Amino acid sequence: MSVIRLKGQADRRLRAGHQWVYSNEINTTATPLKQFSAGDQVVVEAANGKALGMATINPNTLICGRLFSREVGAVLNKSLLIHRLKIALSLREMAYKGPYYRLVFGDSDGLSGLVVDRFGDVLVVQISTAGMERVKQDIIDGLIEVIKPEAILMKNDGKMRTVEGLDSYVEEVYGTVPQEVFIQENGVLFQVPVWDGQKTGWFYDHRENRKTMQGFCDGKRVLDVFSYIGGWGVQAAFAGATDVTFIDASESALSHVEANLQLNQYEGHSSLMNGDAFEAMQSLIADKERFDVVVMDPPAFITRRKDIKAGEGAYHRANQLALRLVAKGGVLVTGSCSMHLQESRLHDIIRSNTRSLERFSQLIYRGTQAPDHPVHPSIEETEYLKALFYRVHNNMGL
Amino acid sequence: MSVIRLKGQADRRLRAGHQWVYSNEINTTATPLKQFSAGDQVVVEAANGKALGMATINPNTLICGRLFSREVGAVLNKSLLIHRLKIALSLREMAYKGPYYRLVFGDSDGLSGLVVDRFGDVLVVQISTAGMERVKQDIIDGLIEVIKPEAILMKNDGKMRTVEGLDSYVEEVYGTVPQEVFIQENGVLFQVPVWDGQKTGWFYDHRENRKTMQGFCDGKRVLDVFSYIGGWGVQAAFAGATDVTFIDASESALSHVEANLQLNQYEGHSSLMNGDAFEAMQSLIADKERFDVVVMDPPAFITRRKDIKAGEGAYHRANQLALRLVAKGGVLVTGSCSMHLQESRLHDIIRSNTRSLERFSQLIYRGTQAPDHPVHPSIEETEYLKALFYRVHNNMGL
Repeated sequence: MSVIRLKGQADRRLRAGHQWVYSNEINTTATPLKQFSAGDQVVVEAANGKALGMATINPNTLICGRLFSREVGAVLNKSLLIHRLKIALSLREMAYKGPYYRLVFGDSDGLSGLVVDRFGDVLVVQISTAGMERVKQDIIDGLIEVIKPEAILMKNDGKMRTVEGLDSYVEEVYGTVPQEVFIQENGVLFQVPVWDGQKTGWFYDHRENRKTMQGFCDGKRVLDVFSYIGGWGVQAAFAGATDVTFIDASESALSHVEANLQLNQYEGHSSLMNGDAFEAMQSLIADKERFDVVVMDPPAFITRRKDIKAGEGAYHRANQLALRLVAKGGVLVTGSCSMHLQESRLHDIIRSNTRSLERFSQLIYRGTQAPDHPVHPSIEETEYLKALFYRVHNNMGL
Repeated sequence: MSVIRLKGQADRRLRAGHQWVYSNEINTTATPLKQFSAGDQVVVEAANGKALGMATINPNTLICGRLFSREVGAVLNKSLLIHRLKIALSLREMAYKGPYYRLVFGDSDGLSGLVVDRFGDVLVVQISTAGMERVKQDIIDGLIEVIKPEAILMKNDGKMRTVEGLDSYVEEVYGTVPQEVFIQENGVLFQVPVWDGQKTGWFYDHRENRKTMQGFCDGKRVLDVFSYIGGWGVQAAFAGATDVTFIDASESALSHVEANLQLNQYEGHSSLMNGDAFEAMQSLIADKERFDVVVMDPPAFITRRKDIKAGEGAYHRANQLALRLVAKGGVLVTGSCSMHLQESRLHDIIRSNTRSLERFSQLIYRGTQAPDHPVHPSIEETEYLKALFYRVHNNMGL
């Protein structure tokens, strides 16, 4: 078995439960990285020679080792994958009645670099590391054995792949994957474009937050900014909203919104605004439109640590516009999927905007990612989703 | 109008949205505190003489001023109370269908020192400051006008009252308050001992967390530690648990658990363990009992900042025992109502215990206080409740 030897105290993070090794933590004199190919499986040793476990390795990346077992000699193969898949499945079956969920959430399920979303009998897989790409066929075989799906799509076009030196492709690797699949979320039907949509086609992570939003929508006027295919807004319609406005820059996303409204036989009023979300909100403000519930759930404005400052500015501007559109006594639902935006920072952005707009706000719900996106207790990078709900009132003299 | 003048930069917190003035922030040379009686209403001025708003004052307490309006000349009286009560009511009516909720949550509703819980037609009021005690009759009159209740109980026996120099009493101030009232929470019926129970008799703050727990209980074996009258465990029974064990030190609380199980016609198996929770858990461990869901929701182990260290030790011991009682693949629900215990510290306690027990855990839900306990964005003291759910598996080689 090949070995990588860590420097000095670099075993500490692993002993505390984390699973990553950074390239600058490896003693490359004792164990040169050049001897390895991306995706090799190696023994990880502490500086004193004690074996800590097994990792896949990519000599070309900053996150260079990913521990997959603390048992020396363990192999990341079909058998280990099946074991982990079964444990992952049992969590989802405990949490959800229908077969619609994220089945595998990378590190949190002991499968760093692997994401699998389940849409009934269709699975969409995303591989983001060389270690997982190496066992691609085992993943496919394992999923067939554990889930018995009708079809599997490899949506291997994520940005991380370039960093890992992997090519970008979308491939039907098992059965026939339809253009759209159908799911249920919180009682609502959706058609999901798995081939052409964003990421795997659907964002299961906000499920519980959307369910909570439903409780505030009956008889209300709702605005869904950055709507994508309508995850929030169509659920608001289902929950009794009399009027829902969707804003998205993608025409194709908005045509799915229409289809999803029809699918749920929505009889209220809906408007679709195709264009830049900031401009669309400005025009609604200019027209003196106000909404009882405003959902502001943008794509990640911060994807890298160095973008934090610019990204926070974007969250600030987006939420200021959103707050101006909230009717008296209404609710702002503000989300962020940027791992680099702290929840407390998002809260600060709302607090300061509320005060400068001379309104009074109360935080009434603090949501996070759904249980099919579990957080690994020792890997803070696995916690990324925020959904804060504020009741926004006019200044009460306070 | 009487005036208090602040020192130097002491206006900053108020300008940022907070509502408290500490006694050491007052320029007592310019405005001696001795001139005031506890409960007086005064103008608060910045060091430069600019008026910041109106506060009630208690010259004998550390939190000496509580801003109730930024409008100079405003009076905390029946009219202002009614205005704030109506806004508070509209939030609860937006969030809940039935009349069972915390109607007023102190500072977060612009009513520092006042808590009102609504049990249908019965209101239970807790006053904790001299400023609110002074307007006690206005509070009663305002509640009668806004809510039209059948009865109001003043449960004025909280610890804070001693600090404020207020006496301790429980008094029926309107109508006839029955020994027990009936409520519904998440579809489940409860009888609540408003005269003799803890605090107002019921803890509405965990409502959403209990609802989430229900999703994990069907067909399961559940343990409810520090059960009080069964808020968690009876809801687990309702949600399909085959077997629920309740632990509480109070015999009277456990007799209410029995009544509440009967009220919901629970046909599964239940056990009541009367005694010290730590000892009861030890004996369950010794008997090799295991549970699919363990709820660990203790009373506040930390009530003052100086108790943080000892209190964290208690949370550590309690959760270690709880974790040992979780069956393979089961769920730990761990709560804390100590404002001084950070959520991240509670998470650390679970993380380190899980690792030392050689188990693998995933955080699957991060809950907080219900929307009828809103958080004031600028008053961090209004955020206190934590409910973390972990899936606990045997060591997976990780």
